[in-house]
Amino acid sequence: MTEVERLIQLLARLPGLGPRSARRAALHLLKKRETLMDPLIQALGSVAETVRTCPVCGNIDTVEPCSICRDEKRDPGIICVLEEVGDLWALERTGSFKGRYHVLGGHLSALDGIGPEDLNIARLVERAEQGALKEVILATNLTVDGQTTAHYIAERLAGTGVSVTRLAHGVPVGGELDYLDDGTLTAALRARRTVES
Amino acid sequence: MTEVERLIQLLARLPGLGPRSARRAALHLLKKRETLMDPLIQALGSVAETVRTCPVCGNIDTVEPCSICRDEKRDPGIICVLEEVGDLWALERTGSFKGRYHVLGGHLSALDGIGPEDLNIARLVERAEQGALKEVILATNLTVDGQTTAHYIAERLAGTGVSVTRLAHGVPVGGELDYLDDGTLTAALRARRTVES
Repeated sequence: MTEVERLIQLLARLPGLGPRSARRAALHLLKKRETLMDPLIQALGSVAETVRTCPVCGNIDTVEPCSICRDEKRDPGIICVLEEVGDLWALERTGSFKGRYHVLGGHLSALDGIGPEDLNIARLVERAEQGALKEVILATNLTVDGQTTAHYIAERLAGTGVSVTRLAHGVPVGGELDYLDDGTLTAALRARRTVES
Repeated sequence: MTEVERLIQLLARLPGLGPRSARRAALHLLKKRETLMDPLIQALGSVAETVRTCPVCGNIDTVEPCSICRDEKRDPGIICVLEEVGDLWALERTGSFKGRYHVLGGHLSALDGIGPEDLNIARLVERAEQGALKEVILATNLTVDGQTTAHYIAERLAGTGVSVTRLAHGVPVGGELDYLDDGTLTAALRARRTVES
């Protein structure tokens, strides 16, 4: 039974699955051989074979450079900097950003020993120095590490003449004040805007 | 990006993963290509190739019949009937059962249209009629469907002369009375035993 145990061990390393749910997942796969296990093996194989990291922006895609970097309709003068590809997908789902992206592949973390050279930062500075760029939007997470990373990048871009911005902080749409943390409320108050009538 | 979307769809069908966590799992796999995705593809392929359902008891194993059915040290006169292979693993982890098993592959369910012919029941009756069997322990889940299945099997085994038993119901070890449901407490009270001093 070592084959199944090995499979369970690997499944347990996926985010969201622990040893118990990995066991259930493995049994489910064995029960749904034709309808789930075989297609999953195929899908994994095809992803492993065809999906590559974009050398320009760090996005993943089956073409190199990725389809966003190739898209002539997207503004090459504005780049949104994100920690992970998942963040890029989240922003793409909104359909409200028509520039290009830059995926760092994580955030600076003294605790985990992740320095600037471990992230896709040098390539971003290169892109900024190439001239066509007008604005960099820093959209790293609003965690301590994410904000440290944003500050570091802002400093690195300081001499390039590119305008550096960040996402607005404030009350989430649909959010109730009573349930918000103090930091968000303070930020929302500071960034208050005139109501146009 | 259809390859990655297809992978996410399949991952989302695993128990314990939803669309959001499947997305995170797919990205995690893409980030850990060498250390996780490639080994997972290999492990899935090897499981799909080598693991078979035991024709005797319904357990899964790389040998046919399974290693439990082959094990001469295990009592062939006593069979524990379970819904799923996961239940078998749970019982094996306790190390307290030294008989053989019979995995039904589910439970009767009028709602899901699962009848006796969809479960591994006919083979159990065959095993009971072969003569060497002394006791069948019905260890289906204590759900309505599980208990219906147990009753049905008990009736099917009625003419074979095999003694049919079930697991004891009662307070779980480590359980606190205050947090127990009424059904369990009632069962535990009815099945109370004399304290030997």
